[in-house]
Amino acid sequence: MWFPVGFTTRIAAMAFIAIFAASSAFGQQDPLPSWNDGAAKQAIEGFVEKVTEEEGPDYVAPDNRIAVFDNDGTLWVEHPAYTQLVFAIDRVKALAPEHPEWKDKQPFKAVLEGDMKTLAASGQKGIAELVMATHAGMTPAEFETIVEDWLAEAKHPRFKKPYTELAYQPMLELLSYLRDNGFKTFIVSGGGIEFMRPWTDRVYGIPPDQVVGSSIKTEFQDKDGDPELMRMPAMNFIDDGPGKPVGINQHIGQRPIAAFGNSDGDLQMLEWTTAGDGPRFGMIVHHTDAKREYAYDRDTKFGRLDKALDMAPEEGWTVVDMKNDWKQIFPPEPAP
Amino acid sequence: MWFPVGFTTRIAAMAFIAIFAASSAFGQQDPLPSWNDGAAKQAIEGFVEKVTEEEGPDYVAPDNRIAVFDNDGTLWVEHPAYTQLVFAIDRVKALAPEHPEWKDKQPFKAVLEGDMKTLAASGQKGIAELVMATHAGMTPAEFETIVEDWLAEAKHPRFKKPYTELAYQPMLELLSYLRDNGFKTFIVSGGGIEFMRPWTDRVYGIPPDQVVGSSIKTEFQDKDGDPELMRMPAMNFIDDGPGKPVGINQHIGQRPIAAFGNSDGDLQMLEWTTAGDGPRFGMIVHHTDAKREYAYDRDTKFGRLDKALDMAPEEGWTVVDMKNDWKQIFPPEPAP
Repeated sequence: MWFPVGFTTRIAAMAFIAIFAASSAFGQQDPLPSWNDGAAKQAIEGFVEKVTEEEGPDYVAPDNRIAVFDNDGTLWVEHPAYTQLVFAIDRVKALAPEHPEWKDKQPFKAVLEGDMKTLAASGQKGIAELVMATHAGMTPAEFETIVEDWLAEAKHPRFKKPYTELAYQPMLELLSYLRDNGFKTFIVSGGGIEFMRPWTDRVYGIPPDQVVGSSIKTEFQDKDGDPELMRMPAMNFIDDGPGKPVGINQHIGQRPIAAFGNSDGDLQMLEWTTAGDGPRFGMIVHHTDAKREYAYDRDTKFGRLDKALDMAPEEGWTVVDMKNDWKQIFPPEPAP
Repeated sequence: MWFPVGFTTRIAAMAFIAIFAASSAFGQQDPLPSWNDGAAKQAIEGFVEKVTEEEGPDYVAPDNRIAVFDNDGTLWVEHPAYTQLVFAIDRVKALAPEHPEWKDKQPFKAVLEGDMKTLAASGQKGIAELVMATHAGMTPAEFETIVEDWLAEAKHPRFKKPYTELAYQPMLELLSYLRDNGFKTFIVSGGGIEFMRPWTDRVYGIPPDQVVGSSIKTEFQDKDGDPELMRMPAMNFIDDGPGKPVGINQHIGQRPIAAFGNSDGDLQMLEWTTAGDGPRFGMIVHHTDAKREYAYDRDTKFGRLDKALDMAPEEGWTVVDMKNDWKQIFPPEPAP
């Protein structure tokens, strides 16, 4: 075999750079720099090392390294209210001129009058009505544009930042760390699947087909020879509580080996994931940091964590204490 | 910088091998060797070159290179009957001793007596009854084992081979060719999603989460503290005809740029895919080869191709003439 000398040298240098880059990413740098050293970080790293050690007793082939993440309160902020509820409220206000009847009709009346107490009292049924009125009647592509436009303008009332900048930095690192170790990462959220898909790739590195969520019905229509999907005002699937294992099975088609949640809505997902054979990992993000984010568990309307918190010790689920386990909550400010 | 000489040489050789392997895979070898040179092959290659040419006007980013494939009759044999129907019939026979009432109850009676005429006359409703009786009442993992055990034993009546060896070699090459060019390949089938998932990775290189199909309802249950999913005797979703674009949207979350089918059940998927903006590709496998496989289109119970065949010219869909476009139908025999 013959190589021109310059070519060989260049290739050797390129190979060296590649190897050097790999070793610094996997060996030397801390892949979870925003996590304080402690039980939670050790549990994560111990699990990943165990399932990726090819000769080890707990080795899991990459095809089966499925990790599922709740979204609201696990990957991004869910207080003072779910982002999608804020979106629905803003949409009701924007659409109100076309719907004069809303002035006298609950729960729309409550939204338009800023009467959050009455809105809260309308419960799941009331919120479902808001969703139907604001999320249906257009194509998925049109809805995507509405979501993107809203996210580009809306700011969180306390942090004064776009919601998509309020993902948790330690969780972003965790997502990358798992993917660098051959995991396929999925979102499994009670939130609307098409409310999340426009931005999950950009924010979390999770493509649309790896997002599982609640959905309204969609119908195929042939509009003047123009085949289109139309979003209908009827629930299709509620991906919450016992719906999460069902949604995972339907969408992913295998039982995950790791599940990450923060509320009782994630209980069955955690149970079903960690009850499988072989190495399993369950984690709960416990919101304990009123100063840097929020502190809540058993007594809240959004992201109630009660039964799952009680079960965590006996089930062997790792509970993240946000205040003590996380060095920082949100991604660093981009340079001005 | 200092390298030990032996190390440098070894790295250079490895890099050379890697580059050589890449160039032979992408540049020199024909990626579609089982396709005769002709309009169909040229259309496929032309489309792939167009969407992958970074500076070109039709460039599509890898994230959006979504290709969807029907299964029965597009990726594997569907005659003389859908494989899943043969499976359901075999299961009825296997379960008959536990169901003495089936001897007098249609469509089970017809199955047990081998009376295919009466079974066919029972139509979709009859077949749905067979599916409910044979596909429900167990966990997804238990069903997977039943499917795998059956596939390991069952042989196609004409070709005397396991069904999983009756995938079309030209389509296997096409799947690999698309993936090598950055496409994500999905199955979108009228068949049962959990009937396909146990073997699609092995046969097609398509993992479980990239399979979309029809499904029965699944329920989360807590059996004596053991969280489980249970397959229920009720339809959940029919992924056929107008259901295909709905299933794609629900599961994949974006409109594909390429769709491959073979029957009128793929019509709406082809329409919706190719009506999108930018470069699009639609292809129909036309079964024209009675000698090596089967010849059928407008007049068949399984895989009827009528309206989609008429629409193909005006819609610009490529029609594959199996007899003339494919050098071989099935993968070569493995060495004995």
